[in-house]
Amino acid sequence: MSNQDKLTVQALQWHGDTLQVLDQRKLPDVITYDHYKTAPGVADAIKTMRVRGAPAIGIAAGYGVALSVKQHFPNNPQTWQALVNEDIKLLAASRPTAVNLFWALDLMQKKIAKLDNNPVAVIDQLAIQIHQDDIAANQKMGELGADLLDGVQSVMTHCNAGALATGGYGTALGVIRSAVQRGLQTVYAGETRPWLQGARLTAWELAQDGISVSLIADSAAAYLMKSGKIDWVIVGADRIAANGDVANKIGTYSLAVLARQHNVKFMVAAPTSTIDWQINNGSEIVIEQRHPDELLPDCYLQDDSLVSAWNPVFDVTPAELISAIVTERGVVLNPCEQGLEILKR
Amino acid sequence: MSNQDKLTVQALQWHGDTLQVLDQRKLPDVITYDHYKTAPGVADAIKTMRVRGAPAIGIAAGYGVALSVKQHFPNNPQTWQALVNEDIKLLAASRPTAVNLFWALDLMQKKIAKLDNNPVAVIDQLAIQIHQDDIAANQKMGELGADLLDGVQSVMTHCNAGALATGGYGTALGVIRSAVQRGLQTVYAGETRPWLQGARLTAWELAQDGISVSLIADSAAAYLMKSGKIDWVIVGADRIAANGDVANKIGTYSLAVLARQHNVKFMVAAPTSTIDWQINNGSEIVIEQRHPDELLPDCYLQDDSLVSAWNPVFDVTPAELISAIVTERGVVLNPCEQGLEILKR
Repeated sequence: MSNQDKLTVQALQWHGDTLQVLDQRKLPDVITYDHYKTAPGVADAIKTMRVRGAPAIGIAAGYGVALSVKQHFPNNPQTWQALVNEDIKLLAASRPTAVNLFWALDLMQKKIAKLDNNPVAVIDQLAIQIHQDDIAANQKMGELGADLLDGVQSVMTHCNAGALATGGYGTALGVIRSAVQRGLQTVYAGETRPWLQGARLTAWELAQDGISVSLIADSAAAYLMKSGKIDWVIVGADRIAANGDVANKIGTYSLAVLARQHNVKFMVAAPTSTIDWQINNGSEIVIEQRHPDELLPDCYLQDDSLVSAWNPVFDVTPAELISAIVTERGVVLNPCEQGLEILKR
Repeated sequence: MSNQDKLTVQALQWHGDTLQVLDQRKLPDVITYDHYKTAPGVADAIKTMRVRGAPAIGIAAGYGVALSVKQHFPNNPQTWQALVNEDIKLLAASRPTAVNLFWALDLMQKKIAKLDNNPVAVIDQLAIQIHQDDIAANQKMGELGADLLDGVQSVMTHCNAGALATGGYGTALGVIRSAVQRGLQTVYAGETRPWLQGARLTAWELAQDGISVSLIADSAAAYLMKSGKIDWVIVGADRIAANGDVANKIGTYSLAVLARQHNVKFMVAAPTSTIDWQINNGSEIVIEQRHPDELLPDCYLQDDSLVSAWNPVFDVTPAELISAIVTERGVVLNPCEQGLEILKR
C-alpha cells in the first residue's frame, strides 16, 4: 500500500491517463471530481481554483506535464518536446505567483531535456514522485510536530493547511492528524473569513478522516484562549522570510498576538520550499489585497457607495511570536533566537 | 423640530395609532417597515427580532403599552387596566433577558396605576418621553465621547451599537456621528460574525447618514492596528459590572487585547442603565451560547456529524483593558483605577 492509498481525502487522484481534481469551490456541500486528460485542462483547473494550495498546485502541474508527454510523444515523435514546452508555458501562466508551480515545472523540464528514448514512463514516474515526496514531507512534519505536542489535549488551527492544500496529509493538519493518533482530544478551527476555508475545507477534511472538530467565529479565539480551552495554535505558511517571520492567511497574526497574551504556544508547519531565503524579514513581503466584494453585500457595490472594504489576504507574524517552525528537515524552536540557518542546504 | 426628526435612520417610528418597525432581519438588501396597531403585534416584532438592541426593545415595549391603552380604555372603561396588564405580560415574555424591556414596562405600569381619568394622552406621552430620553442620552454620550477623540483621524467599531439598536443616534455610533461632525475622517467596521451586524447594520446606517465606512474581516483587526490605521476602538455594551468589566458582542475582548498591544485606545459607550450594580465583576456574567447552525454549513447539521461549533454570543472585556467608559451621566477614564461610583445615583 503506497502512502497515497492510506489517505482518505485527496485533492488530486492520478489514474495514468487522467488527473481527477476535487472541485474545492463546491465543498463541503458537493463532492465532485473533474477529470482532465490534457495539460491545458489541468492549467484551467488551477486557474479556476478547483485546486488550491501551493504544494497541490505544483503536483497538479507535474501531472499536467505527464499528460502532455503522453499525448504528444506518440503522435509527434520528432516535435514532441516543442509541443510539451508549449504546454509547460500554459501551465506556468495559470497562477503566476505560486512558487511550487515553477519548482515542479522546472523539475519536469530538466528531466525531459535529458531524455532520448521514449519519455512516457520516466516522466509519469517523476510526476508521481513529486506527489509522493510531498506526502512523505507532510508525514515527517506531522511526526515532528506531534512530538512537540506530547500530552497536549487541545489545539486550534486557522484556514486550511491540510490534505486539500497539499499532496495529502497536510502541513498544520498533518501535525494534527499525527497528534490525534497519539491522543490529542480536541481540535478547534477558525472559520476563516472571508472565504471560510476553515468552515468549508478544514472541518470537512478532518471529519472525512474521523476527526471531530469544533468550529468558531474567528473573533471568538481570544475568549477561547482566555477560557483555557487550547494549548497550541497550529497554522501553515504561505511564505517564510529568512529571519523566521511568517506570511499566512489573514488572521494568523491576530492569533499569534492573542496566543502570546494567553500563554498559548504557536506552531508554524511548512515545507522548507516555503522559506524565501531572498527575503530578510516579513516587512519585505507584499501583502495582496483582494476585491471588496468578498466582504461586501451586493447592495454596497454600486459606484457611489459610501461603504468600502479593506480586504488583505495575508498578514505577517513576526518570528518573536512563534514558538516553533516545523519543516520536513527538522524543527526550529524559538526561531527569533535560533534563526533558520539549520534548515539551509 | 424634535430630536427624532433630525435622525435619518430610525428603527422605530411612532404615528399615534401605529408603531412602524424597521425589519432589521432584511437589512441591508430590503428596507421595509412593518406596521403594528396592537400590543401583541409589537410583542411579536420583538420576539422575531425585527427590532433588536436593548434600548430599542424597551422603547418598542413602551409604545406597545400605549397601543394597548388606546385599544382597551375606550372599549372597556371598567376593565381596561386588567386587559392592559395582560398585554404587559405578553410584552414582558417577548425577550426574557433584555433589561430595558422590563425597565420600560415598569415605568408604564407605575404610571397606569396612578391614573383615574382618561389615560390615553398621558400614557402616549410617557412612551414618547422614553423614546426621546434615549435619543437625548445618546446625543449626550456622543458629545462626551467626541470630546475624548479630539484630533483623532481614524476609529474602528464592532457589531451595531447604533441608531438601529436604540431610539436613535446610537451609543458607539453616536460617538462616531458626533466625532465625524468635528472632523473624524475614517471609520472601520468589523463585519461581526456570525450575524454580520457590522456588515449588514453598521455599514448601512452610517452610509444612510452620509458617513463613509470601510468594512474588514474581524480577523483583520490586528493587522489594521499594526499598520497604524486606527487610534481608537469604540464599542457599545450589553452589560457592565460594578467594577467596569464589560460584556459585549463576541470579539470585543479580542479587540481590547489587540488594542492594548498596539497602543490603540478603547472606548465603551453605554447608558448607565446598562450598568448592573448587582454584579461585582465580569466573571459573574453568564455568557449565552447560541445554536451551532449560525456557524455551520447545513451539511454538518446531521445527528452523527463530527463537526460541531462553539458559538458564544458575548465575551467579557476586563476593566483594565478599557481606556474610557462614556455614559449620559459622564465619562470614567481608566475605570480599572477610577471605579464607576461617580456614575451612581
